[in-house]
Amino acid sequence: MREIRTVACVGAGVIGGGWAAHFLARGFRVHAWDPAPDAEEKLRTLIDRAWPALTEIGLAEGASRDALTVFGTLAAAVEGADFVQESGPEKLPAKRRLLADIDAAAGQNVVVASSTSGYGMTEMQADARTPGRLVVGHPFNPPYLIPLVEVVGGELTEPWAVAEAAAFYRRVGKSVITMDRELPGFIANRLQEALWREALHMVANGEATVEQIDTAITEGPGLRWPAQGPCLTFHLAGGEGGMAHMLDHFGPSLRSPWTRLTAPELTGELRDAMVSGCAEEAGERSIAELVAERDRAIIAVRRAVAQARDRGSR
Amino acid sequence: MREIRTVACVGAGVIGGGWAAHFLARGFRVHAWDPAPDAEEKLRTLIDRAWPALTEIGLAEGASRDALTVFGTLAAAVEGADFVQESGPEKLPAKRRLLADIDAAAGQNVVVASSTSGYGMTEMQADARTPGRLVVGHPFNPPYLIPLVEVVGGELTEPWAVAEAAAFYRRVGKSVITMDRELPGFIANRLQEALWREALHMVANGEATVEQIDTAITEGPGLRWPAQGPCLTFHLAGGEGGMAHMLDHFGPSLRSPWTRLTAPELTGELRDAMVSGCAEEAGERSIAELVAERDRAIIAVRRAVAQARDRGSR
Repeated sequence: MREIRTVACVGAGVIGGGWAAHFLARGFRVHAWDPAPDAEEKLRTLIDRAWPALTEIGLAEGASRDALTVFGTLAAAVEGADFVQESGPEKLPAKRRLLADIDAAAGQNVVVASSTSGYGMTEMQADARTPGRLVVGHPFNPPYLIPLVEVVGGELTEPWAVAEAAAFYRRVGKSVITMDRELPGFIANRLQEALWREALHMVANGEATVEQIDTAITEGPGLRWPAQGPCLTFHLAGGEGGMAHMLDHFGPSLRSPWTRLTAPELTGELRDAMVSGCAEEAGERSIAELVAERDRAIIAVRRAVAQARDRGSR
Repeated sequence: MREIRTVACVGAGVIGGGWAAHFLARGFRVHAWDPAPDAEEKLRTLIDRAWPALTEIGLAEGASRDALTVFGTLAAAVEGADFVQESGPEKLPAKRRLLADIDAAAGQNVVVASSTSGYGMTEMQADARTPGRLVVGHPFNPPYLIPLVEVVGGELTEPWAVAEAAAFYRRVGKSVITMDRELPGFIANRLQEALWREALHMVANGEATVEQIDTAITEGPGLRWPAQGPCLTFHLAGGEGGMAHMLDHFGPSLRSPWTRLTAPELTGELRDAMVSGCAEEAGERSIAELVAERDRAIIAVRRAVAQARDRGSR
């Protein structure tokens, strides 16, 4: 695998800038480019604001904001880089053009990853000359603090590029989900987007306010999700019977109009997939152990959030 | 308002038992009833498992597990109670029957709250003799740790009952959202259920595994939601432009097939409602302050969860 010392960040808005902050904190040289006239100023402000958090987490040896260089052209930013992270506007024609331009300027076998929120690489790589090195590397905001990166290639992507991107992200402290097939919105955004769209419907219909929606999450299920995802959460809602009891008990609710999204039919096959998936994820942890872990986590999360808010108000 | 010293918990499974643990920890006497033959043993086990967490949070003066009495009949459990929390099976005919039975046994003007996950009180109170005191008081699992309770009445519910339930829940440390209209699934469950249904579709179609879904949330957006709900989260995704920039920038993505839930049309009215809602929720906090608050919270949440997991594995 190519040794990576310099990362090019193409597009330096909230996501591209967040990536730049992350790579700088991990000790890399960062080459940035963004066509907006005030891009450099905004980028440096974003990095300055992120730096206290990054310092608290712990900077890599030699990490410095001085390792950032902002270039006047895309080609100049990309040509000396060992890895390229593209975070341009979320419009398909623009993505396709930008990725083709990056591909034309990048060194041989340099992996080019796109931060796209949901486009498939197959549709984005169409105009590139060497599409085999183009992958999706989808982060969450802020990329310097949220570990998740979803990695997936397109039809023309070569397996080595997917493997290299995943390995690189892991090396810089990310939690990587490598997907073996393209899916619009990937995994996390499909889940998050379903929730978001329901929220928009509710506001549009006067069913709830923005603040009620946020409170419903921060004081409710949002407190469980950092520790246990939606599946394991419901595994515990079933008591000692776990996911099996939960689906048998609450299964009929899936036909209730509790959201505008219609549920799939709860076939025996789906039920069994959920049950065995939870068993696999739980591993050797019993329901009692998972409950204890969840309870410790919720208490700690509530305290952590309260302290973080409190520090801000002083 | 009636002085509340004794709470009846009707139904003592995961939710009813969790409520019992909460009320005991807050220093109340709890009268429980559940028709299952092993209900008392399971209930006492659940409370014993919850007690370390409740002790760590801090018990109310005089709080004791000995303040729990399990009764052999519903009427005996309910008749001496000052507040009734119903947590029976999530089936409409059963709910309707159970609430009518509770109503027949409960003292005058005692509020009866249902833990239903999503039925409307209007459809549940149909068989009760004095339906005016029946309200929904919907908690989240575990009720002894997650603060949110959604309170809403039915068509026949009298306003004093809604007000009393909300006041009582606040007094016992809950975060209450009082809804002024019935909505199947209320607010939090509509949001959570949309996410859950998308997850079930993905498993049913082999698009993601249970573990990938959980990881996508715990390592991704789930880390933001305890501190800032979905609206404020996206307010910050817009950079200095906030929700307005976010909707103008990512608005077209709402038409992308990123989830099976179709988005509402992003009318000017909806856009403005989201923008002003975020402005109201943010209050005097600037984007920079919100970003700093979020960053502190994410770091603290990640540490808290890592420690909670670590303590479990020793």
